[in-house]
Amino acid sequence: MHIDILTLFPDMFQGVMNTSILKRAQDMGAFSYETVNFRDYTESKHNKVDDTPYGGGAGMVLSPQPLFDAVEAVKEKRTAEKSPRIVLMCPQGEPYTQQKAEELAKEEHVIFLCGHYEGYDERIRTHLATDEISIGDYVLTGGELGSMVVIDSVVRLLPGVLGNEASAPEDSFSSGLLEHPHYTKPANFRGIEVPEILRSGNHAKIDEWRHQQSLKRTYDRRPDLLSSYELSDKEKQWIHSWENGE
Amino acid sequence: MHIDILTLFPDMFQGVMNTSILKRAQDMGAFSYETVNFRDYTESKHNKVDDTPYGGGAGMVLSPQPLFDAVEAVKEKRTAEKSPRIVLMCPQGEPYTQQKAEELAKEEHVIFLCGHYEGYDERIRTHLATDEISIGDYVLTGGELGSMVVIDSVVRLLPGVLGNEASAPEDSFSSGLLEHPHYTKPANFRGIEVPEILRSGNHAKIDEWRHQQSLKRTYDRRPDLLSSYELSDKEKQWIHSWENGE
Repeated sequence: MHIDILTLFPDMFQGVMNTSILKRAQDMGAFSYETVNFRDYTESKHNKVDDTPYGGGAGMVLSPQPLFDAVEAVKEKRTAEKSPRIVLMCPQGEPYTQQKAEELAKEEHVIFLCGHYEGYDERIRTHLATDEISIGDYVLTGGELGSMVVIDSVVRLLPGVLGNEASAPEDSFSSGLLEHPHYTKPANFRGIEVPEILRSGNHAKIDEWRHQQSLKRTYDRRPDLLSSYELSDKEKQWIHSWENGE
Repeated sequence: MHIDILTLFPDMFQGVMNTSILKRAQDMGAFSYETVNFRDYTESKHNKVDDTPYGGGAGMVLSPQPLFDAVEAVKEKRTAEKSPRIVLMCPQGEPYTQQKAEELAKEEHVIFLCGHYEGYDERIRTHLATDEISIGDYVLTGGELGSMVVIDSVVRLLPGVLGNEASAPEDSFSSGLLEHPHYTKPANFRGIEVPEILRSGNHAKIDEWRHQQSLKRTYDRRPDLLSSYELSDKEKQWIHSWENGE
């Protein structure tokens, strides 16, 4: 996979992109990336990339020309068989999910468009981007952090990237439930003990406890996740007993 | 506001924390931050911060001792009147929202706990963190990007941080609706024209158009947001006409 990041702040990316899993994934050839400052593509005499909004109002709006031309330039450099995905990071986008990460992980070439402070000219949405993504219902200064979030979540799904220290299938969301509690040494930390069952050596009981805790945590914290989860008979029984305050 | 970030990867933060609004906010004294590598606080002979899980299973679990001791050390350095908020970044946390950003923006001292790859010993959740936050329903390599997202969204709300180029009240989510489309010059870009109404000079009509577009976009893309939005009679009429395919 190759990733192009179109941004006015390429320096934001170094630290995140060259640490830990993202660094290792590049070293092993799973993906490569480039940051492209789309200001380099402006035809404006004063090097501007934005202008005032038609119809008036506060704030500035990113002009279509620099982003359209920057996208064309990075497309020309690649000869992928498939057209690239062109992802606009914005609060109006589709809420990002693990399913979307899995979808993007199948692409050869992904281009991220990161605005900063300001609105995008609507023509960027309607005639350039193939996807609009929002990482959550909160306002950020720009699209840069959002694109790093998407890149991190996608790259860790690429074949061979995750080693033994991170096990994808047990993650929250992959199973549809939140993860169960974890405990490690010491058995007693400042008077707070590890549950006895985890020290029992009875693996059937431990598995059941974890499964129940995982469901309980989801039931308590994120009941919304249960609407798209198919409950087994045993799980229904557990929930029934919690509803009765047991 | 002072922010302490407890992480095993302090180098990830430089680029993001020292660019654009976050840099300016520090220069003007709105906030300060430090990264603390909690590996420096481990009592383990081999400098370890994690261990195998009680009860077996794949993956490693962050030990309580290094994080508890690192939190105590950063608390001792500050003499804020209020206790700090201690925010654990994790997929099992409370889904992050703009309301939570506004709440955190009132704090004097916030400590972020960032795990990486692995689970947290449950005692970190139950006896150390005051808040557990998830930035969205997707899996990331660690808590670092999540804490940067939270910091960016909080710092831009601190008094005086946003200049004229970014206008907080018109943002998506602040009004409860997604933002309306923006357009800037040229009026015709590659054959795609700016809607005539925005060039009409009729500001009452422009305001109405924008309001309607904002509602339409929310209705089309994020109907879930409308459940917590109080519709005016006019808005109800608009929605009624869209439901009838007009």
